[in-house]
Amino acid sequence: MIDYKLLHALALVVECGGFERAGEALGLSQSAVSQRIKTLEVRLGQPVLARQSVPRATPAGQRLLNHYHQVRLLERDLSDTLPALAESTARVRIAINADSLATWWGSVVGAFCRESGLLMDLVIEDQDVGLRRMREGDVAACLCSSDQPIVGARCVRVGTMRYRPLASPDYMASQFPSGVTVAAFGQAPAIVFGPNDQLQHRFMADRGYTGPFPHHLCPSSEGFVRLALAGMGYGMIPESQVTSELEAGALVRVDPTYALDVPLYWHYWRHSGDALAQLTDRLQDTAIR
Amino acid sequence: MIDYKLLHALALVVECGGFERAGEALGLSQSAVSQRIKTLEVRLGQPVLARQSVPRATPAGQRLLNHYHQVRLLERDLSDTLPALAESTARVRIAINADSLATWWGSVVGAFCRESGLLMDLVIEDQDVGLRRMREGDVAACLCSSDQPIVGARCVRVGTMRYRPLASPDYMASQFPSGVTVAAFGQAPAIVFGPNDQLQHRFMADRGYTGPFPHHLCPSSEGFVRLALAGMGYGMIPESQVTSELEAGALVRVDPTYALDVPLYWHYWRHSGDALAQLTDRLQDTAIR
Repeated sequence: MIDYKLLHALALVVECGGFERAGEALGLSQSAVSQRIKTLEVRLGQPVLARQSVPRATPAGQRLLNHYHQVRLLERDLSDTLPALAESTARVRIAINADSLATWWGSVVGAFCRESGLLMDLVIEDQDVGLRRMREGDVAACLCSSDQPIVGARCVRVGTMRYRPLASPDYMASQFPSGVTVAAFGQAPAIVFGPNDQLQHRFMADRGYTGPFPHHLCPSSEGFVRLALAGMGYGMIPESQVTSELEAGALVRVDPTYALDVPLYWHYWRHSGDALAQLTDRLQDTAIR
Repeated sequence: MIDYKLLHALALVVECGGFERAGEALGLSQSAVSQRIKTLEVRLGQPVLARQSVPRATPAGQRLLNHYHQVRLLERDLSDTLPALAESTARVRIAINADSLATWWGSVVGAFCRESGLLMDLVIEDQDVGLRRMREGDVAACLCSSDQPIVGARCVRVGTMRYRPLASPDYMASQFPSGVTVAAFGQAPAIVFGPNDQLQHRFMADRGYTGPFPHHLCPSSEGFVRLALAGMGYGMIPESQVTSELEAGALVRVDPTYALDVPLYWHYWRHSGDALAQLTDRLQDTAIR
């Protein structure tokens, strides 16, 4: 069996940002912590930490840390029946799409985290990468728009996000003076989240245009809205993210009748403990819109 | 010399999201486009595209695309003196810290992009990774808090971001009922942007605490604010990002007198053309605060 005191030392070095601080937290000398990490690396046959000014987990180290946190999560369930074992630092690693995190996620899971003391390690990934990381055991759950279940995991629908093509009024006046025409699509700068974001392509295809178009790439939900507000381009934005900007007229609909509803699915490992099951109940109860 | 019609085909396949659409854009058949990509891969000795449902550039392909866009940027300068050569699809790849993108970036560079037609390919990286990608030629510029210049690049200071430890009022009441004590630091859940984010550690160290502490990891500026609003934790947030939340009392200062000023530096390659030089002037004129 794995020697968990080695993993615990690894987790503390990463969390505290150094060997010395981890030693203080463990009541050990810096060299004793260093020795635990070395022992772990010898057993594993590869480094678990990159020794930079602030030590960082290597991919192998990260895998170990994820396992460590999964074990802590299971220990957490155990401590519900055996309170003497209770500790409160379990952290669950979740892959999530950026727009959910920038909008409804906090308000839906906040109360649950406060009540349960659950800590989250959120990673932003598109669905392909998120589901792959789940398959590899690197994350415990994944929120994305794919309904393809992973073997050994459950998949439940938790709601829908409605996207609309939005822009600033001055952008509309300069780029779409004659309305949203196919001719304008090839010229008007758009904003696209990243190379895997197909929402803009789907909008244009639905309106009869499939050619190239100038676009900025902006992998930040909030940054995306800021570029649109600054008139740098138009793009597909979750309606719920910009209610005040729409009310104030700072953003307007590029194509008033067009909306794209993106379903959201929650993938999580069976047998990963009560905390994830309860979180899943909370997500399903809320039914995101 | 590189055969740029092959790189152009690669860029279009990625931008249009497929071989057929790239062919339409080029006035070629799908198989002619496919042949160009294969020729490129044979010359390079490795794949440039991952053939998924939506083709994606491999790391080698991405390096080529970055070079392609740098050449396009230089062509853009040339077209100022030789207008007959003008095309408007140059895109500059910039590594940027998430908080700048979520706050002031769009409003500062928006006008310049609109006037010049410059397109941006933004990638969010912390400074270590951002500067490494710049050294490797993967990005043309990097905005971060490091003032260590890269050989061959210029480094100019563009301003400062002021961070404060903030939380919701109910979080303060439940986690810091007796004020911000060292004892509370080890128990109160914090929010940290990612493993390399040291702002929270610096705040606690300045207040005399260097041990471990429970924390969520949330690599999204907007998500970070949402988790704080939901009372899930407290954390270091740019003051300028949450002026309305502070005014409305939805967020309050955890430690009223504490502020951390993070300087921002702009690194860019010399000889990378007029567009970047003009953008640099614009950034320096604005002097971010």
